[in-house]
Amino acid sequence: MKTTPGGRKLPHIVVVGAGFGGLNFVQQMPPNLARITIIDRQNHHVFQPLLYQVAAAGLSAVDIAQPVRAIFGSRPNLEVLMAEVTELDLANRRVVHARGELIYDYLVIAAGGHTSYFGHDEWAEFAPGLKSLDDALTIRRKILTSFECAETEPDETRRREMMTIVVIGGGPTGVELAGTFAELTHRALRKDFDHIDPRKTRILLIEGSPRLLAAFPPDLSASAERQLKTLGVEIRTGTRVEAIRDGEVVAGGETIRARNIVWGAGVAASPLTKQLGVELDRGGRAKVLPDCSVPGHPEVFAIGDAMSLVDAKGVTVPGVAQGAIQTGRHVAKLIVRELRGEKFSPAGRQAFAYFDKGSIATIGRSRAVGQFGKVHISGFAAWVAWLAVHITFLIGFRNKLSVLLQWTFSYFTFKRGARVITGVAGGPPANAA
Amino acid sequence: MKTTPGGRKLPHIVVVGAGFGGLNFVQQMPPNLARITIIDRQNHHVFQPLLYQVAAAGLSAVDIAQPVRAIFGSRPNLEVLMAEVTELDLANRRVVHARGELIYDYLVIAAGGHTSYFGHDEWAEFAPGLKSLDDALTIRRKILTSFECAETEPDETRRREMMTIVVIGGGPTGVELAGTFAELTHRALRKDFDHIDPRKTRILLIEGSPRLLAAFPPDLSASAERQLKTLGVEIRTGTRVEAIRDGEVVAGGETIRARNIVWGAGVAASPLTKQLGVELDRGGRAKVLPDCSVPGHPEVFAIGDAMSLVDAKGVTVPGVAQGAIQTGRHVAKLIVRELRGEKFSPAGRQAFAYFDKGSIATIGRSRAVGQFGKVHISGFAAWVAWLAVHITFLIGFRNKLSVLLQWTFSYFTFKRGARVITGVAGGPPANAA
Repeated sequence: MKTTPGGRKLPHIVVVGAGFGGLNFVQQMPPNLARITIIDRQNHHVFQPLLYQVAAAGLSAVDIAQPVRAIFGSRPNLEVLMAEVTELDLANRRVVHARGELIYDYLVIAAGGHTSYFGHDEWAEFAPGLKSLDDALTIRRKILTSFECAETEPDETRRREMMTIVVIGGGPTGVELAGTFAELTHRALRKDFDHIDPRKTRILLIEGSPRLLAAFPPDLSASAERQLKTLGVEIRTGTRVEAIRDGEVVAGGETIRARNIVWGAGVAASPLTKQLGVELDRGGRAKVLPDCSVPGHPEVFAIGDAMSLVDAKGVTVPGVAQGAIQTGRHVAKLIVRELRGEKFSPAGRQAFAYFDKGSIATIGRSRAVGQFGKVHISGFAAWVAWLAVHITFLIGFRNKLSVLLQWTFSYFTFKRGARVITGVAGGPPANAA
Repeated sequence: MKTTPGGRKLPHIVVVGAGFGGLNFVQQMPPNLARITIIDRQNHHVFQPLLYQVAAAGLSAVDIAQPVRAIFGSRPNLEVLMAEVTELDLANRRVVHARGELIYDYLVIAAGGHTSYFGHDEWAEFAPGLKSLDDALTIRRKILTSFECAETEPDETRRREMMTIVVIGGGPTGVELAGTFAELTHRALRKDFDHIDPRKTRILLIEGSPRLLAAFPPDLSASAERQLKTLGVEIRTGTRVEAIRDGEVVAGGETIRARNIVWGAGVAASPLTKQLGVELDRGGRAKVLPDCSVPGHPEVFAIGDAMSLVDAKGVTVPGVAQGAIQTGRHVAKLIVRELRGEKFSPAGRQAFAYFDKGSIATIGRSRAVGQFGKVHISGFAAWVAWLAVHITFLIGFRNKLSVLLQWTFSYFTFKRGARVITGVAGGPPANAA
C-alpha cells in the first residue's frame, strides 16, 4: 500500500481515461498539490499507434500495453480504478462507476475515441474496428484462422474469399493495416502452407475521399499510394462503402467477397460526452471553450479525442496522440496555477494552442511518409524517423527493449513470433473462417 | 508454398497433437522417408512447464508458445493442420477432423492430457485448470480482476474472499502455482493499491495425500513445504476436497470462501483414446504394448500422456515432458527402421525403456527442489538448475531471448510486465470478481 500523508485534505481531481491525454495530464501535475483518481475500464494503457502491429501479429499484446498501476508505481496521492464510468453528474460534481461513485473538485474527461460506423452499427459484427487490445487480438485471430481454413478448403471460390482482406478507410490506420497485412501474408506466412500460396492473398484498401491520407499533403498521399502498390495492395479511392454483410463488402457498386474485413475508417468520441450537456460536433466530441473547459463548468475539462476545438491560432486540434498529450498538459498547467492561488475568471485562463510537431504514417517495413512543417519525406528515411519517434515515446523500460528486440528480429528474418492464436478452444469451426 | 517432390508416393504418417510428444516424433523422423501430417486444435505448441508463469502474470502468452508452422518452417513432406480430430477409424486407417479426413499408413496419438475433475466436471466452472494458454489467461484475468474489485469493495468479508487464492493439488503444478501466486501478490503487486494490502493475500494449497510432491523423495517434499511456508503459503496436506461451488471450496470438513480457485490436481488423457478400442487405465490412458503400439494395430502408436505403460525395466512411464519426448523419439526410430525395409513382427520391435533424467519443481524466485538419481538438491542451487534446463529446452530463438530478458527484468525489479488484463471489455462486473 502507498502512504498518502494528509491526502484526504487535498482537492480531488478525477481523470476519466488512461490514454495519452489522461496519462500526460497526471504526469504534468505535481504529486502533492491534489489528490488524483484515474479511472479506466481497462487496467492498462495502450500505445495506440502500434495497435495495428498487434492486429497483424507483428507484436504481442503486452509489448504495447502497460498496467496503469505499474506506470504510476508508488506515486503519492494517486489512485487507480479499473471500472466503467456509467454517469457524469456535473450538478453534484459526481462520477458514478460500476462499483461506486467519486466526488470531484476538478473533472478531466480523457475518455478517448471509439470506432464509429457512421450510423451503421450493424457493420461492427462483420468488420471489427481497432481501438483496443481486444480488438487487435480479434482481428489477428480472424485472419490467422481464415488462412488455416483456406489450407483445407477444396472449393476455389471459397478459398479466394478466405484469402481476401478488405481494409476500409485510407487514413493512417487503414494505410498501416493494409501495408502490414501485405507483409504478413506475402512475406512472413509465405512458406507456412502446403495447399495455398499466401503471396496470392488479395488486399484491398477502400477510401471514400479522392486520395489516401487526406490530412497529409497531396505529394505524400501519392507516395503512400505508390508504396502500397509496390507491396501488392489494391487501392480504391473515391469509393464509398454502401453495405457490409457477413463475408461481403459492397463498395462503389461492386460486391467484394472477403472473409476478412477490417474497419479503419471512423472514430467518434466516447458516448460519455453526451452527458456533459453541451454541444457536440459530428463525431460526438464536446465543443469546449478555448481553455478546454466545458461551457458553464469551469471545473470540468474535456481533452484529446473527447473534445472539439479550434485553437487560438485558428487550427482545429486534430484527433491524434499529440492533440491528447498537449491538451492534457495544458489543462494540468491551468489547474496547477489555480491550486497555487492565482485567481482569474475562466475567460481569463490561457487559451490552448496546438503545436504541430509533424506527422508520420508508416507503410510496412522500411516504408513511410512524413511531414514536418514544410519538409516532406518518404520511403526509408521516413520509416527511420517513425521508428525513432515511436521507440522514444513507448512507455515503460521493458516494452522499449522488448519491442526493439522483436522488431530487429522480424526485420532480419521476416518471421512473426506473435503468430499465436488464442481464444479459439477446439480450433476453427467447420468450414468457416 | 513448400515444394514436396514426389511426396504423394511416400507412406503417410498422421500425428495427432503438437505437444512435446508429437514434436519430438517429427523431429526424429528424417524428412524424406515419409509424408507427415501433424494435426492440432491449436495453431501453436505450448511450453507447458512454464504455463503457470503465464497464469501468474510473470510471462506473456507468446513467450512460451510457438506457431507449429513456424517450428517446422520449410521442412519438406510435412503438413500442419489446425483442426479438432473428431473420430479415429482404425479399421479404415482414417482420421476424421472438423474440416475433412486423412488416410494414414501410421498413426501416432500424441494428444496429451486435459484437466480431470475426478468425476466432478461441475467443478470446472469454478476452479479452472491449467492445460492451455487460454486456461492460463483465464486464471490471470480472474486473479488480477479480483484485486481490482477488492480495491473498491467496502465490505471486509467480501474483500477477504477476493483476496484469497486456493490452489488444489500438491503436485509440481500446484506447488509452482502457489509459490508464484505468493510472489505475485506479496511482492509484485505490493505497492499497486491504495485500499488493500496485497501482502495480506491468503494463499492455500490443498493436497489429498499426506505430503506435497508425492513423486519426489520425502526429504524434498519436506523442503518444498518449508520453502512454501517461508513465502506465506498455508498448506493443507491429507485434506480431501469435497465440494467446489461459486466462490467456495469445502475441504476436510471446512468451508473456505475464496474468489480465486485454481485446479492443479488431476490430469487425464484426451478423450480420443476411448476411440482406440483398447483397455484404458484410470486416467483414460491407452494401455499400449511394450513398443508403444496399440494392441491389434501395429501401425497405431500412443505416446506421452495418451498412453499407459510399465516399461522394460518395470518403471511406470511418468506423465511428464520427458515421458512424451522419449516415447515420441522411440516410436520414430521404430518406424524409420520399418520404412527402411527391416522386417520384424510387432512383438520383435524394440521395447521402450524410460530414462529418468531427474525432476525439478520450482517454488518461485530462487527456490526449488530437484532430484537427479541419488542426488537431492533444494533452494537456490535447484532453482538455477531449473532455470538452465528450461531455457535450454525452450523452442525457438526469439522465445529464449525474450524469456531470459523478462526473467532477468522481473528478477531485479519484481515488476511484472505481463500484468495486462485482456478479454474483459468494460472492466469487471459490478461487485463481482
